[in-house]
Amino acid sequence: MELSEHIKTANVEDVVLRQPFLPPASGTLCITGHHLLFSDRESRTPRQVLLLLRSVDAVEKRTSGSSGTLTIKCKDLCVLQLDIPGMEQCLNIAHSIETLSSLDDVADLYPFFYRPPDLSLRDHWGLSSTENHYTQVKALQDKWRLSDVNRGYSVCPSYPPSVIVPKTINDDMLLKVAKFRQGGRFPVLCYYHRTNGMVIMRSSQPLTGANRKRCREDELLLQAVIDGSDKGYIIDTRSSQQAQQARMTGGGFESKSSYTGWKRLHRQMERSKALQESLIKLVEACGDQSHNMDRWLSKLENSKWLSHVQTALSTAGLLAECVERDSHSVLVHGSEGTDSTLLISTLAQLIMDPSCRTLEGFLALLEREWVQAGHPFQQRCAHFAHSHTRLQQESPVFLLLLDCVWQLWWQFPLALGFSENLLLRLATEAYASNYGTFLCNTDQKRCAMGVKEKTHCLFQALLRSTERGLYSNPLFEPTELAIWPSVHPQSLQLWRGFFLRWTQHARHLEEVQEELRNMINEWGRPDTRVK
Amino acid sequence: MELSEHIKTANVEDVVLRQPFLPPASGTLCITGHHLLFSDRESRTPRQVLLLLRSVDAVEKRTSGSSGTLTIKCKDLCVLQLDIPGMEQCLNIAHSIETLSSLDDVADLYPFFYRPPDLSLRDHWGLSSTENHYTQVKALQDKWRLSDVNRGYSVCPSYPPSVIVPKTINDDMLLKVAKFRQGGRFPVLCYYHRTNGMVIMRSSQPLTGANRKRCREDELLLQAVIDGSDKGYIIDTRSSQQAQQARMTGGGFESKSSYTGWKRLHRQMERSKALQESLIKLVEACGDQSHNMDRWLSKLENSKWLSHVQTALSTAGLLAECVERDSHSVLVHGSEGTDSTLLISTLAQLIMDPSCRTLEGFLALLEREWVQAGHPFQQRCAHFAHSHTRLQQESPVFLLLLDCVWQLWWQFPLALGFSENLLLRLATEAYASNYGTFLCNTDQKRCAMGVKEKTHCLFQALLRSTERGLYSNPLFEPTELAIWPSVHPQSLQLWRGFFLRWTQHARHLEEVQEELRNMINEWGRPDTRVK
Repeated sequence: MELSEHIKTANVEDVVLRQPFLPPASGTLCITGHHLLFSDRESRTPRQVLLLLRSVDAVEKRTSGSSGTLTIKCKDLCVLQLDIPGMEQCLNIAHSIETLSSLDDVADLYPFFYRPPDLSLRDHWGLSSTENHYTQVKALQDKWRLSDVNRGYSVCPSYPPSVIVPKTINDDMLLKVAKFRQGGRFPVLCYYHRTNGMVIMRSSQPLTGANRKRCREDELLLQAVIDGSDKGYIIDTRSSQQAQQARMTGGGFESKSSYTGWKRLHRQMERSKALQESLIKLVEACGDQSHNMDRWLSKLENSKWLSHVQTALSTAGLLAECVERDSHSVLVHGSEGTDSTLLISTLAQLIMDPSCRTLEGFLALLEREWVQAGHPFQQRCAHFAHSHTRLQQESPVFLLLLDCVWQLWWQFPLALGFSENLLLRLATEAYASNYGTFLCNTDQKRCAMGVKEKTHCLFQALLRSTERGLYSNPLFEPTELAIWPSVHPQSLQLWRGFFLRWTQHARHLEEVQEELRNMINEWGRPDTRVK
Repeated sequence: MELSEHIKTANVEDVVLRQPFLPPASGTLCITGHHLLFSDRESRTPRQVLLLLRSVDAVEKRTSGSSGTLTIKCKDLCVLQLDIPGMEQCLNIAHSIETLSSLDDVADLYPFFYRPPDLSLRDHWGLSSTENHYTQVKALQDKWRLSDVNRGYSVCPSYPPSVIVPKTINDDMLLKVAKFRQGGRFPVLCYYHRTNGMVIMRSSQPLTGANRKRCREDELLLQAVIDGSDKGYIIDTRSSQQAQQARMTGGGFESKSSYTGWKRLHRQMERSKALQESLIKLVEACGDQSHNMDRWLSKLENSKWLSHVQTALSTAGLLAECVERDSHSVLVHGSEGTDSTLLISTLAQLIMDPSCRTLEGFLALLEREWVQAGHPFQQRCAHFAHSHTRLQQESPVFLLLLDCVWQLWWQFPLALGFSENLLLRLATEAYASNYGTFLCNTDQKRCAMGVKEKTHCLFQALLRSTERGLYSNPLFEPTELAIWPSVHPQSLQLWRGFFLRWTQHARHLEEVQEELRNMINEWGRPDTRVK
């Protein structure tokens, strides 16, 4: 196995491990192609720590005399420290961790080797598909059709093979529309609102460019969406100025004159770099050990993270209002349509649609709107907030989604069928995982790599009866009503369960959840409540 | 009844009431000596609102044409609005509310008239007494005695008649010590730590003055407390500089040379005015309707409220560490010994003593350490944060205590036997109440007014079986261990349940508590857990 070439020192004795909540332990450190293994067999309470190397975000070396100390900062914010005797051994270990934690080739990653006894590669992969989604919603079938124009990923590499489009738009027209949208992401249906038949569409920006190019088929497609109803809305996740500027680089927006039935609303959402910098600042603030309250609050403000949460929730609220309260169909896009577009369409669905709020429903929503819809997980979640590597395509958009969902969860503690644990687990898995779900940037690539044949599906694994209890909300009481989040700054707060998870306090909050689960397990829920 | 003289207009028809969470209602407004009554009998869902006038903090008048609008800001942060037809009527109502909400004579207040059917004036008043406290702790009786030197409140008007002091100090000596301490508040025992016999004493500052006066008996008293053990600590809740300055106005501190067995630690805690201003700023920030996240966080920081919470908890932590971890007895005082002194002695007891953490135990602790120990509730809780009246003796020290207890409760969700509801109720009752518990500034005054004969006891009322469920923590699992709060700024947060209680979101949190209570009521707790 070629990974072994990166391992010059595989074993070190007498290593001291320091980790949160536990006393230091002395034992043997072992590096394999995918894991760091620490075992302390001799103490009265033997400890084994198995760390997936992929979950290491940064390694800091400090040497003194003949020994060294490695500080390992993980992508789940956990910080471990290893005191390693022997300078050379220490540097070897550091080098191995650094190299093996950032392998470029997806095929080398651990999901292709992970074989837990209670899962089989022949198990069904994934929870939902466009086809299922289409068949489930009968009312949809009047005016909408399933198109496999993207079979073989030939039209849009970041879309799944099947998509839902207006019945009156044929595949030839779709081909033309795809050429007019960045990355081929032509407008597709992602949500059908049962009570009034309105829909959410999503796409990338139209390639109008400096010359205000038009595409007749694109206009017809959108016309077909509103089909005589009074008006549709386009929520553009860029400021009006940003949208104008995009024309200089070939992008653009839907002009009023060409798209007469549609009204454009601009809501600027920060993307890639600004969001990543915000996360870095927040993580730094959370790790600040000074006892100064003013400094903490000022750093929290300065990170802007909560402002991003607020913007995402309020834009999603706007989208849901258009659909649910004002009965308009809405098209959402920014530039590429793979980040903030997915963020707000997902949140709006959670707000409006009770079927997305169960444990299964939420995972299926993530699968449809993030995995299949082409959020580039491999690029966005390559590093977390500690890495000194120059920022490339990293951006914590998915983490921002989970934070927003947590705010919803916290504001409506009975309305969501899943627990905070699920959100924490997903936040971890998106950055480093035993499962194949978040590998690669697109469905096409996952298909090419054989991800669905050679790795296990995280979502399926989370629904196993052994795991389910941990990820369900014991207080869940489904409601058919929309859950409108408050976006007042006073109503939003730091997701302490995630950002401060390695502090003593977070443990106490876990105790509450455990206590609740115990109560439920002992007694079950009364029959009067729907599970 | 003379209160009626303040009522020129007793009834107004066609008044429109606006209050949080409910649609506006039109009905009849009626002012009595103690209440504002609104009733809307004609609508399909008749509404009656009975507001204790004492709970009104400020009234704002706005007139337009022939009618007026009163905005009534309550001491529990609720804001009501009344649209009143007729300018004169409106001004009359405003005048009545203003006058009747701030009556000076305690005997006029509603607790002297409140007669609920399920309570009797012959019921036992209060939960505990110094005598009970003394008899309960057997180990205490070796070296400590109960003194009734203060019978008739002749020595210290703000102490109860009985106090616990070292056995070797007789009443004559106490008389001399009392003369040497501000307000006669000589050092008394408030907590005995069973596992190591160490104690917490509290007092006011010694009156050393500019001439460094000494009092032999005071020195002997403190000497008797440590009685040969290695050292005692004095926690002075003022900065060293403030303590020095106090000498200029007759106050002072225990000098090293005169109190050889004692080591002084200074921890500056904000008192009266600064604390009141902090509350006013925080309340203003919480009511800010702008949607600006940065502005909110900056106002929150600027109010300094969370810094005060942090200081209180960390000083209490220091006190508990001295007693529990380092086995030293501690004397606590600032200037008067009626505010921050009580704050940190109470918090330290909650941290160390499991018997204070049950519902009854906590109420008894408040009764001993706040009501009987002479916190001047009447002065401190006269107004809340909206009143335009010039600040006098107002200071939200008790509210700060409740906030700190809430932080403990939130950090140790299983360790405290009472619910957030209890803290919210106490925060309301301290400012305006049907009960006599928080009336007057001292036990002496309550005695003189016949409070215990002519009003009902809040603490007894809260323990009635009908109320108990609401105020108990359904997840309570008593622990014998100390509960050490984290005082990292990241671990402390705004008490949203109180400060944002009239927002929609707080209602959802209440739903969770209700759901938990329902579950417990349906199933009870398993036998393996101690109630």
